[in-house]
Amino acid sequence: MTTAYAYAATSPSSGLGRTTVERREPEHDDVEIAVEFCGLCHSDVHAARSEWGAARYPLVPGHEIVGRVTRVGESVTSFAVGDRVGVGCMVDSCRECESCADGLEQYCERGMTATYGTPDRRRDGEITQGGYSTSIVVNEGYVLRIPAGLDPAAAAPLLCAGITTFSPLNHFGVEKGDAVGVVGLGGLGHVAVKIARAMGAEVTVFTTSPGKVDAARELGADHVVVSRDADAMADAANTLDVILDTVAAPHDLNELLRTLRLDGALFQLGLPADPMPAVDPALLVRKRRTYAGSLIGGIAETQQMLDFCAEHGVASDIELVTADQLNTAYDRMVAGDVLYRFVLDAGSLKEDS
Amino acid sequence: MTTAYAYAATSPSSGLGRTTVERREPEHDDVEIAVEFCGLCHSDVHAARSEWGAARYPLVPGHEIVGRVTRVGESVTSFAVGDRVGVGCMVDSCRECESCADGLEQYCERGMTATYGTPDRRRDGEITQGGYSTSIVVNEGYVLRIPAGLDPAAAAPLLCAGITTFSPLNHFGVEKGDAVGVVGLGGLGHVAVKIARAMGAEVTVFTTSPGKVDAARELGADHVVVSRDADAMADAANTLDVILDTVAAPHDLNELLRTLRLDGALFQLGLPADPMPAVDPALLVRKRRTYAGSLIGGIAETQQMLDFCAEHGVASDIELVTADQLNTAYDRMVAGDVLYRFVLDAGSLKEDS
Repeated sequence: MTTAYAYAATSPSSGLGRTTVERREPEHDDVEIAVEFCGLCHSDVHAARSEWGAARYPLVPGHEIVGRVTRVGESVTSFAVGDRVGVGCMVDSCRECESCADGLEQYCERGMTATYGTPDRRRDGEITQGGYSTSIVVNEGYVLRIPAGLDPAAAAPLLCAGITTFSPLNHFGVEKGDAVGVVGLGGLGHVAVKIARAMGAEVTVFTTSPGKVDAARELGADHVVVSRDADAMADAANTLDVILDTVAAPHDLNELLRTLRLDGALFQLGLPADPMPAVDPALLVRKRRTYAGSLIGGIAETQQMLDFCAEHGVASDIELVTADQLNTAYDRMVAGDVLYRFVLDAGSLKEDS
Repeated sequence: MTTAYAYAATSPSSGLGRTTVERREPEHDDVEIAVEFCGLCHSDVHAARSEWGAARYPLVPGHEIVGRVTRVGESVTSFAVGDRVGVGCMVDSCRECESCADGLEQYCERGMTATYGTPDRRRDGEITQGGYSTSIVVNEGYVLRIPAGLDPAAAAPLLCAGITTFSPLNHFGVEKGDAVGVVGLGGLGHVAVKIARAMGAEVTVFTTSPGKVDAARELGADHVVVSRDADAMADAANTLDVILDTVAAPHDLNELLRTLRLDGALFQLGLPADPMPAVDPALLVRKRRTYAGSLIGGIAETQQMLDFCAEHGVASDIELVTADQLNTAYDRMVAGDVLYRFVLDAGSLKEDS
């Protein structure tokens, strides 16, 4: 066993504090990683505070992990010591069901093993602990290669925010000239704009904040619609092929559905804790529109996304924080005060200890 | 002009009564049809009673029309006098937009011209009048061929109920071995079961009525789930590829969405007058499911459906009524007292006059 420095929540109201985590010795097919950076995802806050159901404490969050390989098991051939690698939202799945066989491990029929806070079925239900730590050991099948061209800190959020937005665009088959809408301009939304643009799409950002119009254009949006402006929404009717809705608070979808063309699809990616308002089925029927969901992406698709982002120079806009700033960063995330993703400098975990 | 005998509503509460309609002389690209049979669709009731917005009276309903060609315009080559033909929910569209060019006239960007109750843009906005009449004149591009193998009376409901259920199954690409759910066992639902079975699908019928279990099996359902039985619904979780929801009253979709597999789609076909309950987006996200809508089908696809039904011996189960029984039939439809579609014997319109 190796001891890693980490930050953990110990109760819903504890905030995050210094701790250590014991990491297993690498098994034959494991990769041991010295964490360099870990993105702060809004779901980390929900989990740490038990807002999505009771968490198992202590809880070390973090599923946007980038680091260097320090050891590999004897049967590992895809990774070598010194390689820069990443770990996203899952560290294992059953590897046997149809979804796993199809490379859709995120939809594993027995449930994927999330990077933190879930029982590890291969280790007597030991609870997984995430990337706010100095090291992690992960089966090679769930480790990604970080291409050389990507800045490692700015790449970290791609492991969750990147794949969550890339996957539905890829699944829908977005190509040059397609019209893509992005609802919300946070951690997911700002990456969605960049990825959609890199795919050659014409991008429309929907925001409730007139103050975000310039920022959206700077990120590459071709059009920005303030969604409280009824005339602007009416002008956007029947113009979009696909919408990525990244807003995780309840909101009316009907005005957004009207902006979809025939056969258009709205993918909801954020999951509000409270119920969403009802959808008007006539809006679906009259243009054969679909209201869909999508959950991160499979391992192979995540690698595809990283390679795509390296090729197109896409990464997250980040603000680097040290371990002692994590609690402040959480409060700022909840307040929406970040452009656009906090990333923990994992080196600070050791210095802080 | 030719005078046709017809039945029309003259106000929301008038019921249907005897009248006549003037039909135009066939233009060069028109087909004149002596109506033999016309199905009674639930939307006829909604329209006649102004339940879907204010109708323009007098209103002759009917968009499941089968008859014989009596005259054709000089440029018509696809149809000849004596041919058995059909007319469905639309008699025209703009013929210029992308949807029309793609054979998706039902989604015409300028709006299709419905068979009854809508202004005819090529005739100074004259209101169209439907198939509860002894004759109708329709542009050849909106006339279907009724294959010889189909009983003309039982084929009539295919023009609406048939294409409405065939199109989403066809669009989704249902094939042998796929698992199809059908919600509701009325005019649409009973045809949906037959069509899905003819496509080789394994069919599960969802019904709120334990009394309909045997009827569903007789129609060919492989499984019948009484949707108020929580255990039966739980057993059906993650089993279906596609669901056709034909229920036109507000109802909870979440229990149905749970029965869809990964990438499964629920198509809502009925349009309740009151709002539907909200959909839980987590059910969409966790299995990349979609909640979709679909509106009848294009002309080419409607012909494909008729040919498919003839090949596979699929038609509606019908109860033939005469003109003087129309009002009673409407009341029985509202009460759900029909197995499974009323069809008007148009010959009775003349006898009745």
